[in-house]
Amino acid sequence: MSALLEAKTAVSLGSRILAAQGVLDAFGHLSCRSPERSDRFLTPRSLAPGLVTPHDVVELDLAGDLVPPAKDVKLFLERFIHGEIYRRRPDVQAVVHSHALPVVPFTVVPGVELRPICHMCGFLEGAPTTFDVAAYAGPSTNLLIRNPELGRHLAEHLGDASVVLMRAHGYTVVGHSVPEAVFNAIYTMKNCEIELAARVLGEPTFLSAGEAEACARTLDVATSRAWELWLRQCAPIEAGIGG
Amino acid sequence: MSALLEAKTAVSLGSRILAAQGVLDAFGHLSCRSPERSDRFLTPRSLAPGLVTPHDVVELDLAGDLVPPAKDVKLFLERFIHGEIYRRRPDVQAVVHSHALPVVPFTVVPGVELRPICHMCGFLEGAPTTFDVAAYAGPSTNLLIRNPELGRHLAEHLGDASVVLMRAHGYTVVGHSVPEAVFNAIYTMKNCEIELAARVLGEPTFLSAGEAEACARTLDVATSRAWELWLRQCAPIEAGIGG
Amino acid sequence: MSALLEAKTAVSLGSRILAAQGVLDAFGHLSCRSPERSDRFLTPRSLAPGLVTPHDVVELDLAGDLVPPAKDVKLFLERFIHGEIYRRRPDVQAVVHSHALPVVPFTVVPGVELRPICHMCGFLEGAPTTFDVAAYAGPSTNLLIRNPELGRHLAEHLGDASVVLMRAHGYTVVGHSVPEAVFNAIYTMKNCEIELAARVLGEPTFLSAGEAEACARTLDVATSRAWELWLRQCAPIEAGIGG
Amino acid sequence: MSALLEAKTAVSLGSRILAAQGVLDAFGHLSCRSPERSDRFLTPRSLAPGLVTPHDVVELDLAGDLVPPAKDVKLFLERFIHGEIYRRRPDVQAVVHSHALPVVPFTVVPGVELRPICHMCGFLEGAPTTFDVAAYAGPSTNLLIRNPELGRHLAEHLGDASVVLMRAHGYTVVGHSVPEAVFNAIYTMKNCEIELAARVLGEPTFLSAGEAEACARTLDVATSRAWELWLRQCAPIEAGIGG
Repeated sequence: MSALLEAKTAVSLGSRILAAQGVLDAFGHLSCRSPERSDRFLTPRSLAPGLVTPHDVVELDLAGDLVPPAKDVKLFLERFIHGEIYRRRPDVQAVVHSHALPVVPFTVVPGVELRPICHMCGFLEGAPTTFDVAAYAGPSTNLLIRNPELGRHLAEHLGDASVVLMRAHGYTVVGHSVPEAVFNAIYTMKNCEIELAARVLGEPTFLSAGEAEACARTLDVATSRAWELWLRQCAPIEAGIGG
Repeated sequence: MSALLEAKTAVSLGSRILAAQGVLDAFGHLSCRSPERSDRFLTPRSLAPGLVTPHDVVELDLAGDLVPPAKDVKLFLERFIHGEIYRRRPDVQAVVHSHALPVVPFTVVPGVELRPICHMCGFLEGAPTTFDVAAYAGPSTNLLIRNPELGRHLAEHLGDASVVLMRAHGYTVVGHSVPEAVFNAIYTMKNCEIELAARVLGEPTFLSAGEAEACARTLDVATSRAWELWLRQCAPIEAGIGG
Repeated sequence: MSALLEAKTAVSLGSRILAAQGVLDAFGHLSCRSPERSDRFLTPRSLAPGLVTPHDVVELDLAGDLVPPAKDVKLFLERFIHGEIYRRRPDVQAVVHSHALPVVPFTVVPGVELRPICHMCGFLEGAPTTFDVAAYAGPSTNLLIRNPELGRHLAEHLGDASVVLMRAHGYTVVGHSVPEAVFNAIYTMKNCEIELAARVLGEPTFLSAGEAEACARTLDVATSRAWELWLRQCAPIEAGIGG
Repeated sequence: MSALLEAKTAVSLGSRILAAQGVLDAFGHLSCRSPERSDRFLTPRSLAPGLVTPHDVVELDLAGDLVPPAKDVKLFLERFIHGEIYRRRPDVQAVVHSHALPVVPFTVVPGVELRPICHMCGFLEGAPTTFDVAAYAGPSTNLLIRNPELGRHLAEHLGDASVVLMRAHGYTVVGHSVPEAVFNAIYTMKNCEIELAARVLGEPTFLSAGEAEACARTLDVATSRAWELWLRQCAPIEAGIGG
C-alpha cells in the first residue's frame, strides 16, 4: 500500500472508530497531514464519519481547497479548522473536530476549564480557556469556523496545547498520529464524563503538572492497544433501510 | 413514486428514525401535511413508531377524522395536536409529538425554559413557556390532547415557535419538512441532555438571539447529512420473539 | 393453548421483556396468579429472567412451596414477596420484584418518596414510604424477604398501592395482568430517571391526585401497544460463549 | 480439562464478561492464582480484555516475571498489582484491576469513601480510603503500579478489604474465585452508579456493618446465577473492520 493510501485508510478507520465510540455522529471530522507534502491534508468529503471509506478521503491544501479542484465534491464547511492548525503547528499530524455531547457543557458554563482528571488524560494539561468565535465573527455568528481567518484565530488560541474547547459548539483535538488524535478525542470525552460525575460528589482534584506530563509520556503503548480493540468494535458499513 | 406515497414513505422512515434515536418508544407520533391537499395530514395508525411501514400511514382531515372513514383503523388519541397545528400554521409541513425522557424534566420544574444551548439548536429560539393543559382541561385531566379544542389551545400556545413543552407529558416540535421536524425533535432532546449536564458545572449561557437565528439558517445542509446516517442506523423491521 | 400454558408463556415473555428493558438483570422475578386456582402462582425457577422459557415456569402455593413438590428444582429465595401479596390482595394478578438501578437511590435517601412525575405514571399515586425490612428482621439482616413473615410485613406495607420501595434493595410492583405489572415496573424506573434529572433543574412538581387517577385510567390501551413493541425488542435466547 | 486449562479458561471468560459489562475497555486486567502453585498467577498477555482466549493467558511468578521466560510475550505493565496482592493475601484467588468510568470520580474527590449502598454490595464493607500512589512514587508519577515496590504498598493499603480505590486511576478488587472477583468488580461499579444518583436526591444511608456482612454471606448463590447470564451476554470474538 502506498503511503498516501495508508494515510487515507487511517483517516477512514479513525472516522469509523470515532463514530462507533460516540465521539462523532452525523457531524465532526478527522484529518491527517499528507505523508507526501506537509502543506496538504487528507479528510473525508462531506459525509457522516461512520460511513467513510478510503475512497471518500480527499486531499486539500492548507487554505482548504481541493487538490486537484473538482466541482462535484462537497467538502466540510469547517475544513479551515484543520488547514490552519496544520499551518501553525508543524508537529501536528492529525486533527479531530467533534460535538461530543459530554464535552459541550464544558463550553457553555463561564469559567469552566478542561483539566486532566485521570491518568489517561495527561494530554489535557495546558488546554487554553474556551475559544469564543463571537470575539472574531461578531454577535450574530453561526458559530462555525467557516473561513481561513476564523481558523487562524482558533489555531492561535490552541497554541501549543492538544485540545481547545469551542463555545456552544464542541472541541478540536490534535495528535502526532491518527491513532493519537483519535485516542485524545475519545479520552477528552471520558475526562468530561468523569468530571461531570465527580462534581456530584464534591470538588475534584486534578493531576499535577508533573503527573500530567508523566502520564502523557506513558500513553504511547496504550494508544495502539486501544486502536486495535476499537477497530474490532466498528460494525461493517452496510446499507440501512434507506440504502 | 406518487407524491402521496413519497410522503407516506417519509413518515414511515422518519418514525423509525425517531424510534432508533430514542426520541419515540412505544408512544409518540410523526405526521406530515398531505402533498395533495393542505387540509389533510398523513400519520401512522395507532402503532409503535419503530414498526411503521408506508402501508400503516393513513390520511386524516384537520379535525382528526380518517379519510375515507373506516371503522377498523385505530387512530392515535392525540392526533388533534397535529391537525390543529396544521390549521393554525400554514408554514408547517411536519409535526412530531414525543415523551423523550431527557425532555420531560424540563416540563415539570416551574420556571424552566427551553433555550438554545449550542449551534445545532438555534431553532429553539423563541420557544414559549411550558403549556399546562390543566388550564383548559381542569384539575383532573389525564394530560392528553384528547380533543380539537385542547389541540387549538396547544397550537395557540406554540405560536410561531418550533417547539412547545407540555407539562408532565413531553413536547411537540414542527418543521418545514419531515427531515427538519425529525432533526428538530432529536436536537431538542440533545439540547436538554447538554443543559442537564451543564447545570452540574454551573449556570450555562445560551445562544444570543442573533446567534440562534444564524445557526438555524445554517442547518439546512446538516439536516440531509444527518437523515442519511440515521436511516442507516435503523434496523430492519423483524418479528421478535412474540412475532 | 390451555389457560395455564398461556399464563406460563406470559410470565416467560414478560420476564424477557423486563430483562431487555433493563428492569431485571441476573436478579429479580415476575410472577402471575394461576388462572386455575387463586391460591397458587406461577413464577420461573431460579434463573436469569432473560433466559426464561415457558418450561422454566413452575407453580407455587401462597406459602412459597412448589406444587407438586420436587427436590431438584431450585426456587427464588424471595418468592415470599409474591405469595404474601397474592394472599393479601385478591385484585392483584401479577407481581414484579426488581433491583433496577435508577430506582435504588430512592430507597436509600431518607424522606424520599415515589410520586408520579408524568402522565404515564399515574399508577404511582399513593405509594407508601420506603419499606425497611430491618424493622422486622433486626439490625443484621441480609435485607432479603427470605420467609413468609417478612413477606407479610411487606404486603401490609404495600397496602392498596401499586408499588413499594424496599430500602437498599429495590422495589416490588403489582398489576391486574402480566402486561400491566410489566408496564408498571418499566415506568416506575422511568419515573425515577425523570425525577433524578428534574432535580438537577430544581424542585419538580408532581401530578395532582386527580390527574394521577385520570392518567392511570387511560393507560389500558397504552399497555398493550407497549407490550407488542417490547416483545419485538427481545432477542431470541441463544447460547453465548459459555453455552 | 486440566486444572490449569480450566483456570486459564476462567480468566479468559471473566475478562470477556468484564469487557461486555463495561468494567474493562482496552485496559485493565483479571488474573487468578495458579491452581498448581500458590506462588504463581495466570493473567492475559498485554491484550484488550474483550479479545482474550485461553491461549492468551500466561503464567507469572509473584514478582511479575513470565514463567518460563520468553522475550516475545508482552506483559501488562501493572502486573505487580496482582503479584503483590497474591503474596500478601493467601485467601485471595482472583484479582481485577479496572478504570471503570463510574468509579474514577470516587477516587478524585477528597474525603469520598466507598461504602455499601445496597444489598448486593456488602463486600465493600471495610474498604480503605483511596490509595494515593504519589505518596510513594513522588509528585511526578505516571500513577501506574509499575514495579513490585508500588505493588507492595498497594497491597498493604488494601489490607483485609475486598476493594481499594486508586487516585485518578481506578480500583482493584479481589475474590475467592474468578466469578467472585468478577462479580465484585461489576457491583463495585454499580454501587458507585447508585451513589452518584442518590446524591442528587440527598445524603444516602449505607448498610450497617451487620447488614453488610450478612449480605456478603448471602452472595454465593447470586454469583453463579449472574456468571451464567453474563456469559450469554458476551459476543463471540470476531474480526472487526481492521481484522
